[in-house]
Amino acid sequence: MIDGAMLIGAQARQAPERFTSVDPSSGNGLSPDFSSAGPAAVGAACTLAAAAAPVYAATDPETRAAFLEGIAQAILDIGDDLIARAMTETGLPRARLEGERGRTVGQLRLFASVVRQGDWLDATIDPALPDRQPLPRPDLRRINLPVGPVAVFGASNFPLAFSVAGGDTASALAAGCPVVVKGHPAHPGTGELVARAIVKAVAEAGLPEGVFSYLPGATNALGEALVADPHIKAVGFTGSRGGGIALSRIAASRPEPIPVYAEMSSINPVILMPAALAARGKDIAVAYVQSLTMGAGQFCTNPGLVLAIDSPELDAFVAAAGEALTGSPALTMLTPGIHASFEKGVGALAGHADVRTVARGQDASAVNQAVGAIFETTAEQFLADPALGHEVFGSSSVVVRCRDLAQLTQVIAGMEGQLTATLQLDPADEADAKPLVAALVDRVGRILANGWPTGVEVSPAMVHGGPFPATSDTRTTSVGTLAIARFLRPVCFQNLPASLLPDAVADSNPWGIARRLDGKREASPR
Amino acid sequence: MIDGAMLIGAQARQAPERFTSVDPSSGNGLSPDFSSAGPAAVGAACTLAAAAAPVYAATDPETRAAFLEGIAQAILDIGDDLIARAMTETGLPRARLEGERGRTVGQLRLFASVVRQGDWLDATIDPALPDRQPLPRPDLRRINLPVGPVAVFGASNFPLAFSVAGGDTASALAAGCPVVVKGHPAHPGTGELVARAIVKAVAEAGLPEGVFSYLPGATNALGEALVADPHIKAVGFTGSRGGGIALSRIAASRPEPIPVYAEMSSINPVILMPAALAARGKDIAVAYVQSLTMGAGQFCTNPGLVLAIDSPELDAFVAAAGEALTGSPALTMLTPGIHASFEKGVGALAGHADVRTVARGQDASAVNQAVGAIFETTAEQFLADPALGHEVFGSSSVVVRCRDLAQLTQVIAGMEGQLTATLQLDPADEADAKPLVAALVDRVGRILANGWPTGVEVSPAMVHGGPFPATSDTRTTSVGTLAIARFLRPVCFQNLPASLLPDAVADSNPWGIARRLDGKREASPR
Repeated sequence: MIDGAMLIGAQARQAPERFTSVDPSSGNGLSPDFSSAGPAAVGAACTLAAAAAPVYAATDPETRAAFLEGIAQAILDIGDDLIARAMTETGLPRARLEGERGRTVGQLRLFASVVRQGDWLDATIDPALPDRQPLPRPDLRRINLPVGPVAVFGASNFPLAFSVAGGDTASALAAGCPVVVKGHPAHPGTGELVARAIVKAVAEAGLPEGVFSYLPGATNALGEALVADPHIKAVGFTGSRGGGIALSRIAASRPEPIPVYAEMSSINPVILMPAALAARGKDIAVAYVQSLTMGAGQFCTNPGLVLAIDSPELDAFVAAAGEALTGSPALTMLTPGIHASFEKGVGALAGHADVRTVARGQDASAVNQAVGAIFETTAEQFLADPALGHEVFGSSSVVVRCRDLAQLTQVIAGMEGQLTATLQLDPADEADAKPLVAALVDRVGRILANGWPTGVEVSPAMVHGGPFPATSDTRTTSVGTLAIARFLRPVCFQNLPASLLPDAVADSNPWGIARRLDGKREASPR
Repeated sequence: MIDGAMLIGAQARQAPERFTSVDPSSGNGLSPDFSSAGPAAVGAACTLAAAAAPVYAATDPETRAAFLEGIAQAILDIGDDLIARAMTETGLPRARLEGERGRTVGQLRLFASVVRQGDWLDATIDPALPDRQPLPRPDLRRINLPVGPVAVFGASNFPLAFSVAGGDTASALAAGCPVVVKGHPAHPGTGELVARAIVKAVAEAGLPEGVFSYLPGATNALGEALVADPHIKAVGFTGSRGGGIALSRIAASRPEPIPVYAEMSSINPVILMPAALAARGKDIAVAYVQSLTMGAGQFCTNPGLVLAIDSPELDAFVAAAGEALTGSPALTMLTPGIHASFEKGVGALAGHADVRTVARGQDASAVNQAVGAIFETTAEQFLADPALGHEVFGSSSVVVRCRDLAQLTQVIAGMEGQLTATLQLDPADEADAKPLVAALVDRVGRILANGWPTGVEVSPAMVHGGPFPATSDTRTTSVGTLAIARFLRPVCFQNLPASLLPDAVADSNPWGIARRLDGKREASPR
């Protein structure tokens, strides 16, 4: 059922202010209309979250893990209505959305296993040393505890995996934090279906209703009020640089400042090393265009920048990429607004005096379709105009011709923080690539060789993060199991009697987790 | 040698602007005068630090650990000149400063062992799954890398352990970050001696000179310029709430915002549970006064607040504490400014209509001496006037009489974030204490039973942190081995050829560290 309600804990309420969403493939409005949540709803949801916080924080790993699995099942139980609604609201194809649902459900189940394993607690015990000189050491035990209620801002480009029950929500709930989601106005029906599934899972798990609330809305004021609410203790955000920075500023100027984890903008440089370019330039070109145009290029890891040393092999690469792009179909973008921004960005590059248009994709056959674009320029020109390094969200990419390795390194040194950097290289390139890797680690959260940055694995070693402005907090990741660490804080218990110690550091280790004893960490039990 | 220089890497330079320090025990000025570093020195030091950063980041654990041990030895090699100068500049007694030197040296050596052990790298390997359906998993390897140059602001109250070579510097250097220290103007001679020891250790380790610089100064402009410098990537600070918040605001409004780890203010509530109070109230009173007056109360963990249920036993406790305080000598405070603030804070409490002065310590016999003070009030009055909960830095404490456990819980619920909370309890108190512990974990970084918050162990389980305003970042600690995590960020390597992989995640594990393989963590090797 989709009726446009806000979900304040277990209670569905309609707000008097309304907004509607659009089918981007036709430009037509969709029914029903949706509640545009206001300050009263923010206050009610956050107050409920604060009341639920200590109860939810005190749940044992099995209860919390089963709850996460319950959300996964409740999302599957929605059935095809979820996929159908998401297709209508986003213009994304069925296979992609079915895959994204699998990722979303898999992510919730992965965090359930993370919660059960218990490494996230970082349980640490320094036994007392009563005879130590000159002073005895007390008994000290440390665990991680949840920070408190978390506000989550979903992204438009992953209506399931980075939205209402996406990675931010899954990792915050895994950490033991209640979540208040600000629904993305581009897919409010999809959002409501998922939100109702979570509310159902909360009730089935017997948890306090304040563990989850859902606030749809299309105003900046809603997000601002949510970040400013004193009950909120951390924020997860995926979206534009402007939006992420604005929320970070609000969070930093609160009477009690709180962390904002904003994943913002990235152009994901791909560096073509000479031997690889010579040996398999055309294959790389075809794979590049595939990565660039997939999903209309609407990925934060889209390869928006290619760096290579000027050569006949680069000419051949550019020609092959242009040819591949020319045959690629126009694809519907997520919203009219995103399409308009894409057109503006591509238009600016196409009209730039120092930029050549290499190729465009097939013409659009309907409204809101992205026609892919590859441009080229020289390193001199790229270095001279910072605008050439700004993200154009969608399938637009710039090839930068560098004079030599030194100039290529100079371009890297001038780069802003990025989510990813990719090296296309053959064994003969490795010696030259070594200093590039050293320069790149300073600028990115993930370095790839001979792959493409799109396709972000959800696993323990993944980092979907990076220095500003890729994210607002380079110490973290928003994808993978490490994402749970964003919502935790350490607390130490000194000489507490056994009856007052948390189970995670009790002598009997009732949860059977790996702990650090006197500085030495035990192996994970599972 | 102390000549008032700034140390910009290996180079000692004198600034034209000068400042002097004061012997607080006499109020007399001390020679020599010192450089007051300006913007040019900040720029030079930070530029050197940025140049050193990649070289220092690439050092192996043994090199970095030996360097930390070299600093420890170089500090010991200063000999008694260090203790003598620190005594003159701070008014602290010899035994305390010798103990603090031991703590400082021990902390550097502990971080050397942390660096060698390698758990801080959080090395994680997800092996490739080439046959996985529907998509193969790439080879993913993750480690922690240093964030880059760190600015450290030492505290006045620990001229060694929280100053030039204190916990912030030790943990940042252990993480692989160059450090630029803003020297505290209250002990510039002590600071210079230690800074010269670090510079010597940098040279002896063959590291780039930019790994460490020292900027003495007495202006806010110096600190502001340091935090604003684009090369600085994180800040460690111990000091006042006003100072910490001001630096946090500057850091948040930079074009590239950076984290500030400010340890600021705390009144460290001590809760006297009824059975403990009845059984051993007088012993607790004596220990309380010892903790309160030690070092003239100039500790961030000083017990500034006592909460208990009104009773004849509490009357007896207050009387015993008053008696103990009456006999306690006045002690020289660190600076005339700190003494003036103490006098102002104590004066405001003494003159407060709803506060009773329980006792004062012995009269001062010289300038800048703190005369200890214990006050009492009721929970109603404490809740009605937030000023009664503000920190008075020094040996001043307020006993709050609560009507019952419910009112005591209400006082806790209204409390700001604290570094510590302490329960004095006997077995018969444990049932009543359980909900108090649950309420306190939300408010503090460390909970103690039957001890005193002063005396902060440097160990793996320690948390010297807590919710705002105790610190600016509740996710961290500034004392203990976990402090290294403040200066690290994760980076993922996907499908990189062996020659380009960091040693920490190489197949051969050349550093012999514990790693996480396919989600399972190995035991620490040592």
